[in-house]
This record gives sequence, structure tokens and C-alpha cells, in this order.
Amino acid sequence: MKKFVLANIGVAVVAAGLFLINRSVVAQTQQSSAVVYDSEGKLKLPDPTVFRKWVFIGAPLTPNGLNNGKANFPEYHHVYAEQKNVDEYLRTGTFPEGTILVKELTRVLNPTFPDGSRKEPSGRGYFNGEFNGIDVSVKDSKRFAKTSGWGYFTFGHHPLPYAEWAAEASPSECAGCHQTYVLKTDMTWIQFYPLLRDKNPK
Amino acid sequence: MKKFVLANIGVAVVAAGLFLINRSVVAQTQQSSAVVYDSEGKLKLPDPTVFRKWVFIGAPLTPNGLNNGKANFPEYHHVYAEQKNVDEYLRTGTFPEGTILVKELTRVLNPTFPDGSRKEPSGRGYFNGEFNGIDVSVKDSKRFAKTSGWGYFTFGHHPLPYAEWAAEASPSECAGCHQTYVLKTDMTWIQFYPLLRDKNPK
Repeated sequence: MKKFVLANIGVAVVAAGLFLINRSVVAQTQQSSAVVYDSEGKLKLPDPTVFRKWVFIGAPLTPNGLNNGKANFPEYHHVYAEQKNVDEYLRTGTFPEGTILVKELTRVLNPTFPDGSRKEPSGRGYFNGEFNGIDVSVKDSKRFAKTSGWGYFTFGHHPLPYAEWAAEASPSECAGCHQTYVLKTDMTWIQFYPLLRDKNPK
Repeated sequence: MKKFVLANIGVAVVAAGLFLINRSVVAQTQQSSAVVYDSEGKLKLPDPTVFRKWVFIGAPLTPNGLNNGKANFPEYHHVYAEQKNVDEYLRTGTFPEGTILVKELTRVLNPTFPDGSRKEPSGRGYFNGEFNGIDVSVKDSKRFAKTSGWGYFTFGHHPLPYAEWAAEASPSECAGCHQTYVLKTDMTWIQFYPLLRDKNPK
């Protein structure tokens, strides 16, 4: 009976350890964002406070000032993926099912030149202004079989707040361009993402 | 005695659960990068395969094409911090002691216009080319008391491989400009980092 008590204490100690370990690890852990659809197939907005802490993979910039004032994506495109999906891409060259790629836009900060740039102590160029919209792609080979395995959703190209839900974009809005240009790299613009393109070199 | 055996099985089950939970959590956990100095005070290069998975906070861009071919920082500046330090900044408005900020540069991708831009299906603009250097700042109020609590190190502005060690940069190279322009925001260009500037809004 004495041993039994000791063993139970052992369980308690291990359980307490488990609690402590999880507490400390969670503080540094990237949170996942589940793919949630409503009954009409609309996608729920991934939580910006979560995906902004995912792995950043690239920052294409198409300023309004270089696109007749009407860039298709105004203006910085910050692209994020979950670490587990980045790791899998680096290992295999394709993203796993369920991968979410988030492109959050920001405007450029207070332009003073016609091209949208401004001068700062670091030089003349572009700097991140206000958040300005979100596009999301989701890999699901069955659900999005007609668009090469990826579904595309836009939550608006405008300042916060973004739409809470988005219907799948038509192929002419998003998937068609990806199919034309980047079908062979898992529908993703790997050529603009040095971490993925260059295999995370040291 | 039977109860004792059961209790021991309980310990084993909890221990096995601990192992499994740690395995799955670790796969998603951001790795820390310790601040390591040699005997001369040189800083060890933070591991690029680690810090590239930290939290991204901004992407200023100073193209050579807009800076007479000689940008001080050519050209994209991708800035990263560990999640725990970002969280602390968002909570308190200052970075904790030991914070590392990493600025990794990339060139712009194959310019076709004099300003460094090129046309892609998403529009005319800038896209990330090859990795091109690393600057690091470390917060240590005692060690770097003379430069307002931050030390600055550059591991070269050139393609990989970067230098393995870097001596502290002189105040005229880095700290002086930070003191002049951003002393009040913990020596950091918060105005260019929307996640920090705008408090990670939803």
C-alpha cells in the first residue's frame, strides 16, 4: 500500500511536469489556424493575430505608383505559411493537404515621390504603411479538384476590418493565373520566395 | 499489489503521453537563438535557418535603382524577432533584455527598369531576389550602455555565406542613427513595422 501511494505521487509529479512543460512551450508555439467553412462553402477569415506569427516567406511589392494608381494588389504582399507546412515543402517540394497560405497586403507608407517611394535615413524606397487586405489559398485536392487542388479566397483589399467570411473566388479571379504561370510549383510563386526557392540556405 | 501495478501503468501512460505531446509541439515551436560572444566580444551569426522562422515584423525596401546604385542596405530588409519578444513588446512597449532583432537583406529580383522594378502578372514592382546580408541588434542595457542599451553588428552586405562572427559596429555606423531618429521607440524603427506600430490589429 505504501508503494501504491508513492506510485500515485509519481503520477502526480509527472502530470504536474506535463502542465509546466506545456505552459512554457505554448508561449513560444505558433498557433494553427483551422480551415473553417460555413454551410455555403465560404471560408472563415484566418485570425490575423495568429497568422502574422507564422513563417514569413516573401514580400512582393506592386506599388500603385508603378501601376497607374490601380495595382491589383495594393501594395506590399506579405506572405505567410505555418512552420510545419514550410518544413514539409522544404523536405518534399510540395505543400501538404490543408496548407493555408495567407497574403496580407499593406499600403506603402506616405509616398512623397510619384512612384510611391519616400526618403528615410536608410535611403529612398518603400516602407510598410497600413494593413490593407487579405487573400488566402487553401490546398485541398478533392474540394478544389477543378482548380488544380487549391482554392482561392479574398477578404477584401482595403483597411481593417476585413470581411469575416469569403466565398471561393472564380477561376478567372485567381486560380487561372496560378495555373498559367505556376502550375509546376504547386500553384505557388516560389520564384519570389527565397526561403522556399533557395531551400533556406545558410 | 495489483493496484500498484495499475498505478505504474498509469505512470507509463502519462509518460508516453508526455513524449507524444512534446514531439508534436516541438515540431511547431520556434527555436531560440542564444546570444553568443567570443572572448573579443564578437557576436556569433544567428542561425539563418532558425531566425527565418521567427516572427516577421517588416520589409523596408531601398532599391539600388532609387539610391544612385549604392543603397546603404541593398535592398529588401526583412526584419525578424522572436515571438516571446514581440509579445512582450506588444504588452509593454519595450523589448526585454536579450532581445535579438535580425535584418536579413535580399536583392530585388532581376530588374528590368532603371528603378530596379520589373513586370510580373501581379503588376510592376519589386520581388525578392537572392539573400544579401545580415545586420543584427541585441538589447543589453549593461553591455551596450554607451549606445542606449543596444549593440549593432553586421555580418556583411553580400550573398551567402555570411561572416560567422562580427565585431560591434562603431556608433557612427549604426547606433548613432538609431539614437538620432528612434531613441524614444526603444531604438527601433517601429514606424515601419505595422505589427508593432499598430499593435497587431484584427
